[in-house]
Amino acid sequence: MDRLLQDLLKGDTRALSRVITRVENRSADSLDILRQLFRHTGKSQIIGVTGSPGSGKSTLVDRLAAEFRKKNNTVGIIAVDPSSPFTGGAILGDRIRMQTLGVDPGVYIRSMATRGHLGGLAAATADVAAVLEAAGKDPVLIETVGVGQDEIDIVRLAEISIVVLVPGMGDDIQALKAGIMEIGDIFVINKCDRPGVEKMERAILGLLSLGHRADGWQPPIVKTTATKGEGVAELLEAIDRYYVFFRNSISRSRKKQEAERQRLINLLEERLVNTAVEQIFPDGELNDLVSAIAERRQDPYSVVEQIIRSLRFQRLNIS
Amino acid sequence: MDRLLQDLLKGDTRALSRVITRVENRSADSLDILRQLFRHTGKSQIIGVTGSPGSGKSTLVDRLAAEFRKKNNTVGIIAVDPSSPFTGGAILGDRIRMQTLGVDPGVYIRSMATRGHLGGLAAATADVAAVLEAAGKDPVLIETVGVGQDEIDIVRLAEISIVVLVPGMGDDIQALKAGIMEIGDIFVINKCDRPGVEKMERAILGLLSLGHRADGWQPPIVKTTATKGEGVAELLEAIDRYYVFFRNSISRSRKKQEAERQRLINLLEERLVNTAVEQIFPDGELNDLVSAIAERRQDPYSVVEQIIRSLRFQRLNIS
Repeated sequence: MDRLLQDLLKGDTRALSRVITRVENRSADSLDILRQLFRHTGKSQIIGVTGSPGSGKSTLVDRLAAEFRKKNNTVGIIAVDPSSPFTGGAILGDRIRMQTLGVDPGVYIRSMATRGHLGGLAAATADVAAVLEAAGKDPVLIETVGVGQDEIDIVRLAEISIVVLVPGMGDDIQALKAGIMEIGDIFVINKCDRPGVEKMERAILGLLSLGHRADGWQPPIVKTTATKGEGVAELLEAIDRYYVFFRNSISRSRKKQEAERQRLINLLEERLVNTAVEQIFPDGELNDLVSAIAERRQDPYSVVEQIIRSLRFQRLNIS
Repeated sequence: MDRLLQDLLKGDTRALSRVITRVENRSADSLDILRQLFRHTGKSQIIGVTGSPGSGKSTLVDRLAAEFRKKNNTVGIIAVDPSSPFTGGAILGDRIRMQTLGVDPGVYIRSMATRGHLGGLAAATADVAAVLEAAGKDPVLIETVGVGQDEIDIVRLAEISIVVLVPGMGDDIQALKAGIMEIGDIFVINKCDRPGVEKMERAILGLLSLGHRADGWQPPIVKTTATKGEGVAELLEAIDRYYVFFRNSISRSRKKQEAERQRLINLLEERLVNTAVEQIFPDGELNDLVSAIAERRQDPYSVVEQIIRSLRFQRLNIS
C-alpha cells in the first residue's frame, strides 16, 4: 500500500483531501484505492440528515459535529449540494461553514456537487463516506436536501436518518407522505424560536400514527434552535438511544445488507456501462449511432438488445 | 403490431394509459412496445418546466396546456413528483389538477412517482414522453421540481426549458448559481401579484449578464400570475419565438443528439445490470455475496473487476 493511503489511515488531513479528490473524479487508481481501504470501513456511525432547503440543516449538522467533538470523536461531514439553480450549492455552503467550524482540525467537511457523477451521486457519496471512515472519522454525517431520488438513495446509505423540519410548514405538512415513516429514525423540529412548533409536532405525530415500524422503534421528535445551540445535546442523546436500540435490532443487519447491495449494484452499473461503451464503440462510433437514432434510422431498443444478446456473464465462484 | 398499440397511435386514451403503465412498470413487453413506437416519436415539442416547490409550477403548466388547447393541439403532461417527504407527491397533485383540466379529453396528465425506477427516473420519463408523442400529444410538457440530479437530467430531455421563479425569493436568488444560464431558455416570474417582482427581475437579469449562450439566444423573462391566467398567452408567444429561433439554430441538433445519447446509455445501463445480475447470480447467490461484503470477507471492487475482466463485448456493425 502506498504512502498516501498509509497517511490517510493515520488520519492525515491532506492525504484525506487528496484521496477524496481522486475518488470523486474517478481517477484511474480510484477503484484500487477504494479496494485497499475497504477492510478499514464499516465501523463508523453513518448518520444521514435530510431536510428541505431553508430548514437550517447545515447549521444543525455543524452544531451536532461540535457536540460529538466534546466526546473526542473526530467527525466527517459530507454536504451533498445538488447543483441546482435553486440551492446555494457547494461554494456558498462552504463559505458559510468555514466561519463555524473551519478552525477545528477534528472536523473534516467535504461538499459534493452533484453533477456528472458516474454511477450516480449515491455511489459517489458512499465512496467518499468510506474514505472518511478509513481515515478514522466517526461519525460520518451525510447532509442532503431531501428532494429527489438521488437524495433518498443517499439517506439509505446511512444507519440512522434524521429528518429536519421547521415550524410554519403548516400547509406543506399535509402534503407530507406517509413514506416519511420509512425514512426518519429521528425527527427534528428546528428553528423552534418561531411560532408553530406545537402545530408541527402534532402534524408529525399524526403522520407517525398512520403506521408502525417493523422493528418497533418509535421515532422521537427533538426540538432544536440550532443557531443558538438549543436542543443539540438532546439530539445527540436521541441518536445514542437509537444506536443502543439499533445494535440489538434486526433492522441493523438488514440496513447494512441493503446498503452493501446498493453499493455493489451501483459499482457494477458504472463499470459495466463504461466497459461496454469502450469496447463496443472504441473509435467514436457512438456518435454515428446516436445520429442514426436521432434520425430514426435506428432504434435504441433494438441496438441494446443486440448488445445484450451477444453477452455471456460467467457465474462467480464465491467462497 | 397488436391492437393496443394501434389504438394508442390513433390517440385512444385508455390504450395510452395502459401502455404507459406497462412501460412504467417495465412489464416484460415494455421494451418491445417502445421499440415499435420509436419511429412515431421525435416530432412533438418537448417542453420542460422546472421550479422550486411552491412556485406555482403545476398551475402554470395547466394554464399553458389550456392555452395550447386553443390552438387545437392535444397536450400531454408528465408531472414528475419526487416521492419525497417534502413534496405533495403524485396523489395530492393529481387530485388538485382534476379540478382544472380533468374534463378535457385533449389534455392527458400523468404523474410519475420517482421511486425505484430501473435505469433511473430520467430514463422512465423519456419513455413515457415517447409514448405520449406516439399517441399524438404535441406538446409534451414535463414538469419537475428543480432540485437534484435526476430532475436536471429530465430537463435535459426537453428541447426547451422553462424555469419558474417567484417574487420574494429575494435572499435565495443570491444563491442561484450561474449554472441557471445553461438550464433556462425562458424564465418565468410567477405569482406576480406578490411584491418583489422587479427585484426578482433584476436578479435574473444580473445572473443572465454573467455569461452568454453559445447559440446567441437571449432568454426572455415572462411575468405571469397563473392562478388568474395572466401572462400565459405571453409565455406561449415566448415559446413560439424560441422555437422559431431554435429550428434554425445549431443547438437543436446538438440537444437532440445529447438526449438520444442519454437515452441509449440509460437503456444500456438498465439492461446490462439486469442481465448481469440474472446471469451471474441465477440462484440468489447475490445475498451470500452481499453478506460476505458486509462482513468484510469480500470487497465489492474486486468482485466487480472479476466480473468485468470476464466480459467481452462485440463491436456493433452499424450501417
